[in-house]
Amino acid sequence: MAPHPLAILSEEEINLARDIVVAQHPNTVIDFREIFLQEPPKEQLLEFLALEHSGRLSPTTPRPPRLALCQYDVIGSDRVPSYEETVVDVVAKKSVKHTIVGKEHHAALTLSEFDTLVERCFASPLFKQALAEFDLPEGFEVVIEPWPYGGLDLTEPNRRFFQGLCFARDARTNNPDANFYSYPLPLIPIMDAHTQEIIRVDRPATGGKGDGLREQTFKRDIIGHCKGSDYVPELLPEGTRKDLKPLNVVQPEGPSFRITNESLVEWQKWRFRVAFNPREGATIHDVWYDGRSVMHRLSISEMTVPYADPRPPFHRKQAFDFGDGGGGNMANNLSIGCDCLGVIKYFDAIITGPDGTAQKLPNAICLHEQDNGIGWKHSNWRTGRAVVTRNRELVVQFIITLANYEYVFAYKFDQSAGITVEARATGILNVVNIDAGKVSEYGNVVSGGVLAQNHQHIFCVRIDPAIDGVKNSVQVEESHPVPMNEATNPNGNFYKVTSETVERACFFDAAPDLNRTVKMVNPHKINPISQKPIGYKFIPLATQKLLADPNSIQAQRAQFAQHHVWVTKHKDGELYAGGRYTLQSQKEVEGVSDAVKRGDAVADTDVVVWSTFGITHNPRIEDWPVMPVEIFQLMIKPSDFFTANPSLDVPSGKNAASRVVGSSECCRNAQL
Amino acid sequence: MAPHPLAILSEEEINLARDIVVAQHPNTVIDFREIFLQEPPKEQLLEFLALEHSGRLSPTTPRPPRLALCQYDVIGSDRVPSYEETVVDVVAKKSVKHTIVGKEHHAALTLSEFDTLVERCFASPLFKQALAEFDLPEGFEVVIEPWPYGGLDLTEPNRRFFQGLCFARDARTNNPDANFYSYPLPLIPIMDAHTQEIIRVDRPATGGKGDGLREQTFKRDIIGHCKGSDYVPELLPEGTRKDLKPLNVVQPEGPSFRITNESLVEWQKWRFRVAFNPREGATIHDVWYDGRSVMHRLSISEMTVPYADPRPPFHRKQAFDFGDGGGGNMANNLSIGCDCLGVIKYFDAIITGPDGTAQKLPNAICLHEQDNGIGWKHSNWRTGRAVVTRNRELVVQFIITLANYEYVFAYKFDQSAGITVEARATGILNVVNIDAGKVSEYGNVVSGGVLAQNHQHIFCVRIDPAIDGVKNSVQVEESHPVPMNEATNPNGNFYKVTSETVERACFFDAAPDLNRTVKMVNPHKINPISQKPIGYKFIPLATQKLLADPNSIQAQRAQFAQHHVWVTKHKDGELYAGGRYTLQSQKEVEGVSDAVKRGDAVADTDVVVWSTFGITHNPRIEDWPVMPVEIFQLMIKPSDFFTANPSLDVPSGKNAASRVVGSSECCRNAQL
Repeated sequence: MAPHPLAILSEEEINLARDIVVAQHPNTVIDFREIFLQEPPKEQLLEFLALEHSGRLSPTTPRPPRLALCQYDVIGSDRVPSYEETVVDVVAKKSVKHTIVGKEHHAALTLSEFDTLVERCFASPLFKQALAEFDLPEGFEVVIEPWPYGGLDLTEPNRRFFQGLCFARDARTNNPDANFYSYPLPLIPIMDAHTQEIIRVDRPATGGKGDGLREQTFKRDIIGHCKGSDYVPELLPEGTRKDLKPLNVVQPEGPSFRITNESLVEWQKWRFRVAFNPREGATIHDVWYDGRSVMHRLSISEMTVPYADPRPPFHRKQAFDFGDGGGGNMANNLSIGCDCLGVIKYFDAIITGPDGTAQKLPNAICLHEQDNGIGWKHSNWRTGRAVVTRNRELVVQFIITLANYEYVFAYKFDQSAGITVEARATGILNVVNIDAGKVSEYGNVVSGGVLAQNHQHIFCVRIDPAIDGVKNSVQVEESHPVPMNEATNPNGNFYKVTSETVERACFFDAAPDLNRTVKMVNPHKINPISQKPIGYKFIPLATQKLLADPNSIQAQRAQFAQHHVWVTKHKDGELYAGGRYTLQSQKEVEGVSDAVKRGDAVADTDVVVWSTFGITHNPRIEDWPVMPVEIFQLMIKPSDFFTANPSLDVPSGKNAASRVVGSSECCRNAQL
Repeated sequence: MAPHPLAILSEEEINLARDIVVAQHPNTVIDFREIFLQEPPKEQLLEFLALEHSGRLSPTTPRPPRLALCQYDVIGSDRVPSYEETVVDVVAKKSVKHTIVGKEHHAALTLSEFDTLVERCFASPLFKQALAEFDLPEGFEVVIEPWPYGGLDLTEPNRRFFQGLCFARDARTNNPDANFYSYPLPLIPIMDAHTQEIIRVDRPATGGKGDGLREQTFKRDIIGHCKGSDYVPELLPEGTRKDLKPLNVVQPEGPSFRITNESLVEWQKWRFRVAFNPREGATIHDVWYDGRSVMHRLSISEMTVPYADPRPPFHRKQAFDFGDGGGGNMANNLSIGCDCLGVIKYFDAIITGPDGTAQKLPNAICLHEQDNGIGWKHSNWRTGRAVVTRNRELVVQFIITLANYEYVFAYKFDQSAGITVEARATGILNVVNIDAGKVSEYGNVVSGGVLAQNHQHIFCVRIDPAIDGVKNSVQVEESHPVPMNEATNPNGNFYKVTSETVERACFFDAAPDLNRTVKMVNPHKINPISQKPIGYKFIPLATQKLLADPNSIQAQRAQFAQHHVWVTKHKDGELYAGGRYTLQSQKEVEGVSDAVKRGDAVADTDVVVWSTFGITHNPRIEDWPVMPVEIFQLMIKPSDFFTANPSLDVPSGKNAASRVVGSSECCRNAQL
């Protein structure tokens, strides 16, 4: 049976593509980055999906080509690699396209490069020499946290660099998970990945308020004022709390979802496909509700984390968490942590090793149902009759670890036909050493000697709507005050709702003062009741945009983070808000800002909407050593898409397992 | 045992107060509105609480006076009532204060007045005459939905009025819960409550785009183009969906909370009291975390719902859902609807009948635990070790029904020492008749003949912080961009965090562009690690403010809805953002805007913070006939209050009841 055109590549398909690429480049060393499905050209995909949805597929139906996008470096004799891409047709078993990307761009990083960095640091005389300037207490070991180099300064040669953030681990704990972030070292070794040499060791300042940007004020006893701050339970001085009783989610009749051929999910009138790729992680495709098309594709497109400490070289702390190394590559095995409650379906993913061989990433996505409180309720006070439903959600979740930070991403489908894209930020703050007793205007001291620098996390969600078909328009709806006047507003209570169709590709910002709302509509399908075009809407999240100076490298490479909403015309392969090649980029290339610059007409066509939001994260001590989740929710809801509340038919019966607490269980009377 | 000073009045105490008020007014008719605890003067309360917290209470400890605030109308011979208030000391059994409020204000409405309105309408020749202009289909019955009159026009006599919104119910369904809102009638009878007479019947227009504000365009067959839109399951043409399997929350060892003397709640290091009053519903008092004071009092202070249809008399559709009739009075019996999952503790409330007699309102508040996804997580990619905790919350919830609408309010306490105040709007849209085939710029046609008018819901949460003590300051923190410059921002990545202490009572707005954050701090308690004052913070929700013209009655009486944040100095009894007397008010009196006008110094004193937020609700068809919840969350979080993440010690064990789905339960392979 042929795989569905949206099914992720199998291990066999990946290995086949690898073989074809290897054969294409005889007598060279190839460093593979990623091999994953290049989704079919949309036009062909839509033809296939139309047949599928109308039940007209047969074994002889022509299928879109099944393509593997292979990204790799060809290592030359000078070790300066040539970043190339080959598209392999895995059915025809041949290369159909070969591109030399160009030396101005860098292929995504791989964990094996991180290993190299660590190894080279420890072997480096430069690094040893730098370390020798400090006295580490007995029993401490140096830990190097590999990072992308951030945005390359304009004056630097465009070699492939990596930086290592350095910490010390208290090995006396005999616990490999003792929190080394508690002991930051002010050293940043830099590796040239081509030569695999440590070319220098940067010395960030450790001062506080009043100290110069480059002033060296550290003491030899560099972590003498630091203090272990652990999070693994066995290292907590007082252990874990004892008074939390179990809360179980039990589904005695099993789940309400159904999964066909490993990727087609059906649940509560929803029908969609789950896929995965090493860059975006879990993606959602071909979303229908009750037999009607809603979305073509939904994804977390990019995320950037720029740090605001102006002391060089901290300006290079800016990760593109999807583009630099692949958000999907960093996905957790979810069965290891107890990440969900209830009855869980896990999906495996497949990524690629440095030699191009497929590697299973087990349990990379989980799917489960959850209860989200009351869904709707009405009590008729005349009769005393209350009808109340619960709000059941289906959650498609994946979690990525990027060195210190974790992000929990979820696509949540609800019974009211809404989709919420949720991001939770957690994990460990990225921190640096600060001299004893000092405070800083660049961040917050969260533990002795530990400065958590101010930074932002800015996400971009890509929404490719298909509101009862692919040809859609975007309308911007606003609510405006109207001055009191006898003709139209005699009592001053009126406000005017305006709606404007976006004609050309553009960007705009959230405007809560105007209740600015983005509607994705099908201009040809008019709701028979309201006489408005059917649609889905969202209110852009009014969060702070990128703060870096627009001329800074940080800002130049993250144009997408400078506006809340971008509207573009679909173009095959244009999936990445921050640009196709973010690693060490100096500007956003082929990102959403370039897409907008084309100035395409976007009304009544295959339009794509990008929603940017995030958090300005000025750390509080409560974020240390592991931060409680910060939650962001982009809610996408039907707007005159249906002819009534789509969750009206959710049963309202009393949950038989819930009960009133017994008085002996919880309650006592005591003398005051 | 004497009740705690914050315990709600018992039935006996209320009835005692009633008797004293009745005795005070011999030979008169008294219409009681509310009798409830007047919380002790804060100074005395704090003295008591200090003794309580230090374990020094004894049976002989002097207690603050136990006071009942009685609000009632004394009905004169002309039936024009005198609105009066008596404060009764229920221990001393005597009146300690008697106030004649004044005829410019109106006592809160009671449900018995609603009954009178309905009865008088049906007896009114005027109303019968108006009804006779329509032909209702056989089997339809007129339903009158009593409403407060809204803001009184400046030209009107200040009598006590009520308005009735009229609908028809399809009695042929033989179901008392058939949705009469589907059949709106363009009649608004007005009753003078003093004389109990229907003084006129307003005739709102039923036109659409292009029709005049006062143009009468209706047809005799007034609901011929309407269509039943039911929500009770037995009236749904296709019944309820069948494929939703049970999801149970099971707590085999019982709940983790403990309740002492019916009002003191202890859970996961939290300790607070739950109270209730007929105006605000559930209130939260004396909140401590891990032995440290966080809040003195937390409440939903007010909420207004102004409608934006400019056609008179629709400008009078503006409810103050807490002030007009008492949010608490409208609280649901939560055991009737299946409002929560898990193990639930219900609290009864006590309200007052028109004769002043205490009435139990059973199960008005519920308390339960719930799971809110991942609390924090970190995976050490070196070791593969993941530590992940769930985010357990304790929810104190109450639900109010205001004619058509429902609001679900919850105070959610979490293990990271955060408090989220959540409001969910649900229930039925308030709708009016619109001629067949027309659409309107004043709202959305959600069903045949049914126009759901544009409106706003604006809430105000009152926060009386007690950050390690009562004397607190408010700081406004912002993050500002800094132009690239060699001296302080050589690479352009720096942004500056500013913090300013609020010196005088004032208002200000949300400013997401500046990441404006409100911190409530104790300026005398400095965090030993960050060297910043300990505090709690929130980001004001950037939602649209009141849109009505500032000179309109709607705006004049809802000053609180015109700014997001108000900072005032505590004053006993100053609890109501929209003013003490909102029913039929023409302006906000003794509300938060007046409190600000005092210009009190608010630094390092007993400061109160008010947070206003809401929704501009331009209805979509999906909100009909009962709307899926719209959710608002004000998150109040510790900010350098602790010395680490307070949920670090939450156990991270795997939930034993969760399981992987079996392939036969959900999954199948099929030919494509």
